[in-house]
Amino acid sequence: MAIQTPTSVPHVVIIGGGFGGLETARNLRKSKVQVTLVDRHNYHLFQPLLYQVATGGLSPANIATPLRSIFRRQTNCEVLLAQVNDFDLDGKRLILADGDIKYDQLVVAAGATHSYFGHEEWASLAPGLKTLQDATSIRRNIFLAFEAAEREQDPKIRKQMMTFVVVGGGPTGVELAGALSEIARHTIRNDFRHIHPEDARIIIVEAAEHVLAHYPVNLCKQAAEKIRSLGIEIHTKTRVTNITKDQVHLLSDEGEQVIGTQTVLWAAGVHGSPLGRKLATACGVETDRAGRIGVTNRMHVQGHEDIFVIGDLADCTDGKGVRMPGLAPVAIQQGRYVAKQITSMLSGTNNENPFIFHDRGTMATIGRAKAVVQVGKHVRIGFIAWLMWLVVHLLQIVQFQNRLLILFQWGWNYLTFSRSARIITGEDRVILIHDTPSTDDSRRAVDPTEEESESQPPS
Amino acid sequence: MAIQTPTSVPHVVIIGGGFGGLETARNLRKSKVQVTLVDRHNYHLFQPLLYQVATGGLSPANIATPLRSIFRRQTNCEVLLAQVNDFDLDGKRLILADGDIKYDQLVVAAGATHSYFGHEEWASLAPGLKTLQDATSIRRNIFLAFEAAEREQDPKIRKQMMTFVVVGGGPTGVELAGALSEIARHTIRNDFRHIHPEDARIIIVEAAEHVLAHYPVNLCKQAAEKIRSLGIEIHTKTRVTNITKDQVHLLSDEGEQVIGTQTVLWAAGVHGSPLGRKLATACGVETDRAGRIGVTNRMHVQGHEDIFVIGDLADCTDGKGVRMPGLAPVAIQQGRYVAKQITSMLSGTNNENPFIFHDRGTMATIGRAKAVVQVGKHVRIGFIAWLMWLVVHLLQIVQFQNRLLILFQWGWNYLTFSRSARIITGEDRVILIHDTPSTDDSRRAVDPTEEESESQPPS
Repeated sequence: MAIQTPTSVPHVVIIGGGFGGLETARNLRKSKVQVTLVDRHNYHLFQPLLYQVATGGLSPANIATPLRSIFRRQTNCEVLLAQVNDFDLDGKRLILADGDIKYDQLVVAAGATHSYFGHEEWASLAPGLKTLQDATSIRRNIFLAFEAAEREQDPKIRKQMMTFVVVGGGPTGVELAGALSEIARHTIRNDFRHIHPEDARIIIVEAAEHVLAHYPVNLCKQAAEKIRSLGIEIHTKTRVTNITKDQVHLLSDEGEQVIGTQTVLWAAGVHGSPLGRKLATACGVETDRAGRIGVTNRMHVQGHEDIFVIGDLADCTDGKGVRMPGLAPVAIQQGRYVAKQITSMLSGTNNENPFIFHDRGTMATIGRAKAVVQVGKHVRIGFIAWLMWLVVHLLQIVQFQNRLLILFQWGWNYLTFSRSARIITGEDRVILIHDTPSTDDSRRAVDPTEEESESQPPS
Repeated sequence: MAIQTPTSVPHVVIIGGGFGGLETARNLRKSKVQVTLVDRHNYHLFQPLLYQVATGGLSPANIATPLRSIFRRQTNCEVLLAQVNDFDLDGKRLILADGDIKYDQLVVAAGATHSYFGHEEWASLAPGLKTLQDATSIRRNIFLAFEAAEREQDPKIRKQMMTFVVVGGGPTGVELAGALSEIARHTIRNDFRHIHPEDARIIIVEAAEHVLAHYPVNLCKQAAEKIRSLGIEIHTKTRVTNITKDQVHLLSDEGEQVIGTQTVLWAAGVHGSPLGRKLATACGVETDRAGRIGVTNRMHVQGHEDIFVIGDLADCTDGKGVRMPGLAPVAIQQGRYVAKQITSMLSGTNNENPFIFHDRGTMATIGRAKAVVQVGKHVRIGFIAWLMWLVVHLLQIVQFQNRLLILFQWGWNYLTFSRSARIITGEDRVILIHDTPSTDDSRRAVDPTEEESESQPPS
């Protein structure tokens, strides 16, 4: 089935409703084009707060805004819930899982997924954090680990269950570890009868010399101190060599080390969406090692002026020669730039100015009410930095209500150390892990609908 | 593995953290017993608001409170996340999916699930609403139906996609239909480009002569009028004879009628938890047609003074000879009564007084800001009734924060007609239904973790 679209004005199709795609579509609102935004989900996900969902601080809907409500009033924009499978450049159309759609200009903002650096077998043992499903699945793993430990009688296995290893010391890894520490030391501190959650061991493993390595060195060191003060161990210059269901193997200058754990969280590498490779093949270009597509500094694929790639999927050097990192501000500014490019192309006044990234600074939280903020040469660490982080993130969340809801929930969490969204969902039969070694399957979610409808109803 | 429990005081084991189980455990807080509350979920679910989750008004965590945080300060109570599979009455122990646990007194408050009156094959086509999984799965069905209709070009199939049939005109059915009407006529009214959501057809099918049949007849009639004013069709004295993937067959005095629909929601019958049958077999008693266990008016199983059954699983006639309906207030008062019974039994002063239910009234909402309330002979319908409903339900929600969050969210929804939790979750690949007839599978959730980890990563 071909998707119906008006033919009187040029048709801009955008793949992906993340930061880049959203910004492109919004900035085309006054242009004489018809925009179709294609996404597999019906919501824009505010990824910077995904770790809060994974750790029970926020609910999925708090950080997900329906795309249709964002574009309700932008009459030249249509939202299409569909999965893009491939590209037909000659026909200027996208092959969807269930139809196709023609475009005049194409903007690919399909983002990135986890990279296990060739160890895809680790994916089920060390889930990453990119989607809402990932977040609720990690939330499930974390809280089930404490439940299992509560029932475990073998102290060695109990210790394994209460050991959490976060692979990757970038912002996501640090945020996850910090939230884990808050959970163990405050939120569920008095919830159990047989374990002391504050005994949980939380470890960050980072291959580079420092955590938060893209900040200046002295800031990294301060951040590391703050992280350690939360009871978190940091293993830098350390690589993961193997992950099994109850162990993670580490290699550093000091040799190999094996840590018993049943919860490994992956915050180490990202890889461009699989769509990237398909687009590259169709365009006759290569992807880089991280699965990203090289684009010109005008954000289009070399030799294809009608195909733009932005955000995490783009391997881009801006007009000042700076290599672009995979950050939300980059995607947002690229979206704005591409919308302008399309508008001027269509009006016949080709704009040859390259994309220039304006770095307004970066920030990351460290546990409860601490953060690192860098704006140009100004750096700050601590509570004030956290307030800045809070304001910036709240302002960025698209829908007005969510800002207030999140502020309210955070305020409450902050005052009470509570995390009200720490519910375990995704499986209807609870089989805890104890005595006998766990199997991989028992740590993964099972489709409850499937179970309920096909076997006996739940008791 | 046997679960460790202290042996110095009697051990009361409660199965189920719903209204009945929770109230029993809380009312044993001052008794010289050790309480273990067993549940398959780590939260208490506030079922009366489940329809709000199913229709995107609230998030799952808004109506689910972690059991451990409820009992944090009740030191004689322990929460056990486990599935009970069977009963060993001779050994006075429960067989869990992964261990066993001994009891001195047993309180079974395992609740109920849907009943399809012998048509179990309808379960996957017409999901019921008992668990959080049910709610997010129904939410998914509802919002995907509009998405599919937006893309459908065949007007007949499009009409099918925009027809919603709710089977059952009790409080749950009326609440679901009312919320559906609000979604279609207000919330997503301007979200689509090719369909008019307000054209959605919403139908309630009820076998009895009236909807909300347990209220006085003139109130039923008024309620039906209000429901119809929301654009909802009511088919009373009508039974469902068949459900297929795109039709529902109805039979009334006027003959058979076939309605094209792809979304049927089941709010018709309940059946005691499967655990009920196992307990009945172990005790040598029968279950009634609804799968409930007959108990004495002192809430214990005949011949088993150490085994109490309360709530939706109990077939009970109280001391005044009144047959108990499956309502939260009944379960709560039974829980309180049983706690008292156990305490007096253990102190040697057997209490022979039967359970007496104090009916404080019933209430149900009808769409946006209308409700029916009955307190004794006083009945009320409309906005004031809805305010009463709101206050009563907010006061009942266990955790303080949730009350404020829900009030906030409701206030917002009420003012803006918004429903911020209308995100579609549960599957990572979106395959919409169009052209070719849908298969059952495409309307059901697929385990996303499974998919992501075993096939290619999401694009």
